[in-house]
Amino acid sequence: MARQLEGNMMIAQSGGPSAVINQSLIGAVREARRQRRIHRIFGARHGIKGILGEQLLDLGRESDATLQAVAATPSSALGSVRKKPTPEDCVKIFEVLRRRNVRFFFYIGGNDSAETAYIISEEARKADYEMRSFHIPKTIDNDLRENDHTPGFGSAARFVASALQGIDLDNRALPGVHISVVMGRHAGFLTAASALGRRRTDDGPHLVYLPERPFDMDRFLVDVKKVYDRLGRCIIAVSEGIADADGTAIAAKFSKETDSHGNVQLSGSGALGDLLANEIKAKTGISRVRSDTFGYLQRSFPGAISVTDAKEAAAVGAVAVRQAVRAAQDGSIAIRRGRGRAYRVTFECVPLRNVARETRHMPDNFIAPAGNDVTPAFIRYAMPLVGPLPEIGWFKGKPVK
Amino acid sequence: MARQLEGNMMIAQSGGPSAVINQSLIGAVREARRQRRIHRIFGARHGIKGILGEQLLDLGRESDATLQAVAATPSSALGSVRKKPTPEDCVKIFEVLRRRNVRFFFYIGGNDSAETAYIISEEARKADYEMRSFHIPKTIDNDLRENDHTPGFGSAARFVASALQGIDLDNRALPGVHISVVMGRHAGFLTAASALGRRRTDDGPHLVYLPERPFDMDRFLVDVKKVYDRLGRCIIAVSEGIADADGTAIAAKFSKETDSHGNVQLSGSGALGDLLANEIKAKTGISRVRSDTFGYLQRSFPGAISVTDAKEAAAVGAVAVRQAVRAAQDGSIAIRRGRGRAYRVTFECVPLRNVARETRHMPDNFIAPAGNDVTPAFIRYAMPLVGPLPEIGWFKGKPVK
Repeated sequence: MARQLEGNMMIAQSGGPSAVINQSLIGAVREARRQRRIHRIFGARHGIKGILGEQLLDLGRESDATLQAVAATPSSALGSVRKKPTPEDCVKIFEVLRRRNVRFFFYIGGNDSAETAYIISEEARKADYEMRSFHIPKTIDNDLRENDHTPGFGSAARFVASALQGIDLDNRALPGVHISVVMGRHAGFLTAASALGRRRTDDGPHLVYLPERPFDMDRFLVDVKKVYDRLGRCIIAVSEGIADADGTAIAAKFSKETDSHGNVQLSGSGALGDLLANEIKAKTGISRVRSDTFGYLQRSFPGAISVTDAKEAAAVGAVAVRQAVRAAQDGSIAIRRGRGRAYRVTFECVPLRNVARETRHMPDNFIAPAGNDVTPAFIRYAMPLVGPLPEIGWFKGKPVK
Repeated sequence: MARQLEGNMMIAQSGGPSAVINQSLIGAVREARRQRRIHRIFGARHGIKGILGEQLLDLGRESDATLQAVAATPSSALGSVRKKPTPEDCVKIFEVLRRRNVRFFFYIGGNDSAETAYIISEEARKADYEMRSFHIPKTIDNDLRENDHTPGFGSAARFVASALQGIDLDNRALPGVHISVVMGRHAGFLTAASALGRRRTDDGPHLVYLPERPFDMDRFLVDVKKVYDRLGRCIIAVSEGIADADGTAIAAKFSKETDSHGNVQLSGSGALGDLLANEIKAKTGISRVRSDTFGYLQRSFPGAISVTDAKEAAAVGAVAVRQAVRAAQDGSIAIRRGRGRAYRVTFECVPLRNVARETRHMPDNFIAPAGNDVTPAFIRYAMPLVGPLPEIGWFKGKPVK
């Protein structure tokens, strides 16, 4: 474009880490190194906190070997933050950016991070400071609008699907009821991924509860009893975000902690799983009831990264940099899926406000009518993002008479 | 030997599943197929329960492809049980074994399972029924006597070590206190494995609490505060079996459920982690405190199997069968480590009663004097069992001035 913007670059990571958020960071850094108009590459530690406090790393001087190693490492190598900038923060941020001659700003994260990139973009516009502000999508929740899916989801989904394969096998060996509590505040995609490893008709999870449908304890207990009576066991996947008909998260009844975006802490506690397990024990008479809360394992486990997810995460980082250098507008990079039979994605630049704040939920056709399972349409949607799961073997033989 | 025992074989799995217990099962089955003196191979469903109820699979007729697939699959493919046979059970078991002309009996499991094999061995002797009764070792707890280590431990340790790498990276991004609750009733080996992925001097876990040392809440809080004040964060690994100076498990205070071996249920609940997290919040003033209980993930996750563990698990199964056919005595197969620099194991047949009932603990030289960490000797001991862990990358660069 006509602007010929030229200068330094600032990049930072925000919100909950994922297994591939460093792929996006390194994808952007590598692309920036190839861009003549980008001079220095500053990495801010812990998101906007690192800009405010000028805790910056010179990412242009890292070796290729380091970049490669960091890309393959889960969690946010620059550190992260859950902080929404106040108007005063924004003034200070611009002081830093202007002084550092930053003309390209990239913020990697979810919808809260897109909002931050949007606020900074607006402040830059108001201050008449010429700068490209870009959001690079990341969230294991898969809940960003405009996106077919988001980097981070595929790997977290791979962990959850593999975990449920293992838990189902474990429960076949020692039958009972097992509850897995999966991350996902408002969107059930990650909990839904628990079903991706099912092969046999009686494989678990047998029941899947998502935040998109009101959670009713009595119906839940009836569901569990029914599966247990039929199979002698019952595997359940529950989103940490399940809420009653009034919209109150069941887990929120145990937590008073909130971040500056107003989000109540749901993770990092086994309370929801234990509550559900105790209800089942008390009301159905089933004795062996266990619950596991996947917690931080599902977003930072280094051994379950989806190859497709890693590739796409690197690509959105690189595309954001190319777009920022070439285009005269700010934006977020959205992943779109091609219409053909074969899995194929394209990347599009969309306005920041389209991705900021509000989130996306599971569409109705991904949720079974009874509200306690996913549909084959969801399985078809999610499988390419996760990649081939571990093979499960079982004996075929007839019983000895 | 002179006996020339010949007839059918019965094999079963017992106790908590592991990621490689099927390797032992299939290792035994494949070896049995090569043995002329073993005719039919019966697999009992759910341990002795399947013998008592005559729920048997004909494992001699499974295809090679099935055997290969089952071997690579976590958890107990025949099903498991936590049942100690009563004297009446034993009478019934012998009825079945005699009627089926079973002369080779194999029971895969931990010390409780070795005890079962011992009881059956004794009953066979008293009944003057000629039969080889063998225990094949398995336990993620790594607590069998006579063994340098046990099949199942390496893979569970690999999961725990990888998980802590991820949790440490996650906590670097969003600092605070994180508690991981790891399985292990009386032995701390698996919790100790949390330290295997440490690379940098400030990598977590920073504190490791084992059941081998009395757990003191006040000292724990002081430890946590000290690390937190130094690093601004603190990663803790705690065994589910930590107990106070009187020997009462902290987690047992929340559980009333026991199995027929008298073991109190410790897993399948987040209560211990939540208790510790709440204590830290209340007493130290640190606000971001999270806990994750690894639960069933750590013993049946299909994506974190140690190659060495899988090989050795298959070997102990095969060795048990060869031993049973050749020798005139019953026993358990123990893994011994060679004295040289290079990692090398041998397999020895030891008396069943040496492995039954009592368990082994972490030796003192594996536990740091302060009682809140492991030693380099433990790391050297455990690394070959786990194999190379995921590489972790980090930025080397100097901060921008």
